[in-house]
Amino acid sequence: MSLHLGLDLGGTNVKCALLEGEHVLAQASAPTHSASGPEDVLARVAELGRTTAAPFGAVASAGLGLPGHFDPVAGTGGLLPNLEGDWLGRPIAAPLGDALGVPVALVNDVRAMTLAELRLGAGRGAEDLVCVALGTGVGGGVAIGGRLHLGLGHAGEIGHTTVLPDGPRCGCGNRGCLDRVAAASAIAAAAGRDSVEDAVRAAEGGDTRAIDALAEAGRHVGLALAGAIVLLWPQRVVVGGGVAAAGELLLGPLREEVRRRAQVAPVAAIPIVPAQLGAGAGAIGAALWSAQSEP
Amino acid sequence: MSLHLGLDLGGTNVKCALLEGEHVLAQASAPTHSASGPEDVLARVAELGRTTAAPFGAVASAGLGLPGHFDPVAGTGGLLPNLEGDWLGRPIAAPLGDALGVPVALVNDVRAMTLAELRLGAGRGAEDLVCVALGTGVGGGVAIGGRLHLGLGHAGEIGHTTVLPDGPRCGCGNRGCLDRVAAASAIAAAAGRDSVEDAVRAAEGGDTRAIDALAEAGRHVGLALAGAIVLLWPQRVVVGGGVAAAGELLLGPLREEVRRRAQVAPVAAIPIVPAQLGAGAGAIGAALWSAQSEP
Repeated sequence: MSLHLGLDLGGTNVKCALLEGEHVLAQASAPTHSASGPEDVLARVAELGRTTAAPFGAVASAGLGLPGHFDPVAGTGGLLPNLEGDWLGRPIAAPLGDALGVPVALVNDVRAMTLAELRLGAGRGAEDLVCVALGTGVGGGVAIGGRLHLGLGHAGEIGHTTVLPDGPRCGCGNRGCLDRVAAASAIAAAAGRDSVEDAVRAAEGGDTRAIDALAEAGRHVGLALAGAIVLLWPQRVVVGGGVAAAGELLLGPLREEVRRRAQVAPVAAIPIVPAQLGAGAGAIGAALWSAQSEP
Repeated sequence: MSLHLGLDLGGTNVKCALLEGEHVLAQASAPTHSASGPEDVLARVAELGRTTAAPFGAVASAGLGLPGHFDPVAGTGGLLPNLEGDWLGRPIAAPLGDALGVPVALVNDVRAMTLAELRLGAGRGAEDLVCVALGTGVGGGVAIGGRLHLGLGHAGEIGHTTVLPDGPRCGCGNRGCLDRVAAASAIAAAAGRDSVEDAVRAAEGGDTRAIDALAEAGRHVGLALAGAIVLLWPQRVVVGGGVAAAGELLLGPLREEVRRRAQVAPVAAIPIVPAQLGAGAGAIGAALWSAQSEP
């Protein structure tokens, strides 16, 4: 069975997974934040891929998850605000493919996570799935009929659902996007803490302000998910990303908001479950994506 | 080529279309509001179907569009608030199939319209389509990969997207659903007119309050559509239903709101166009649905 390599490039680390079919043979990660610009970053990505795959033999395909947009046809970078340096229009797939010796398929990191959870994680068995990743930003992904749905290229941007019509300005130009009000930094600020991890600890210790901040974020995510649910009537919803570690402090109010808002849909039959594959999901999904994108 | 019969049951009329492949051979309609209960309504539906098809020969399948929900497996009625009488749990597909002599496939009326516009109307050529119908209520439909997407049964309920989180109570139990704030009666009330047709006439004559009411409804529809667009990145959006006759008075503010809210998506590449098939779209779509549902 062929080997497929998945890489997931973030602002701090690059993660790697090697798959044989749907079996994960190896996982690894390496820092990227200290790299001196995009060329150096891509060299580190390639190096991590090569060293992870070397003990197992030649790979048939490779996929790279990116934290934002790119041109899937040209294989060049687009809006990638969490990566340092200038990535807009920069060739990514071709140089990485040259370095790895196989074609490289690009995919958004949360769409990759969605595919991984669908096939190997909390979404297994579902045909239609909505996925949301809560972290530095809020990303998402949609699967329809057992396949990742990308529409005109980057479908799944649930983070840019308007949840507060007159809310704060988002990087995209809109006001009150979910991404703006439920990102880790927004939750930390609302809780009066330095980080969302601090906020979760405080909430677990009974701090009312932190509890409220997590609940409010959960309700905002729930409002956006309710819109996706009445539109798509999916079989399941998966909630992942680092902020999801808050558990029921966030998921409880989230589910309650969905029940309140999506009453027209059979919400009792649509489980809203935590992701299962953790931080390696993006790399696993990138490998799966490359396997199905093979020429 | 086989003949397919489509029927579309509304609170006032039942509409009928006879298709040969994708060619519309005949269309007809008959009143239902004076019928004495569900049995009499179904008898009139069957009668209209038989008399429309008779000159052309035997039909291979029939479809019935319904203004709400139903049980697609049992072929029985569900939540159908715009039909008089008690339809909940009432057998529909079986008795109508007996009367017509062919199996009857049930479909929501706006999902039927979506399918008709996708194949024969304003959505032709699109693979991924979002459709919204503005009338007595606000309905919707989604096509993915050239097929109607139903998910767990009734996907497409864009009318129950929350657009005013603390807004008026909707029939579904939620507050501030699009269906509640952009329905014909809501627009008429906001314009201080007896009907939405009056409101449109007043707006066309320069009445500021009527112009504002239509613009506000357009912005609410735009807000819900923006959520669907960032999630699905469809190739096209179709806006139909009687209220869409307001034209640019409604579509202008609608498009502006989409441009403002869905900036993360390539909104310039996603045309928002009026429906083309008019009030007969539901019956045409029901015929198309029955053709693809044939055993």
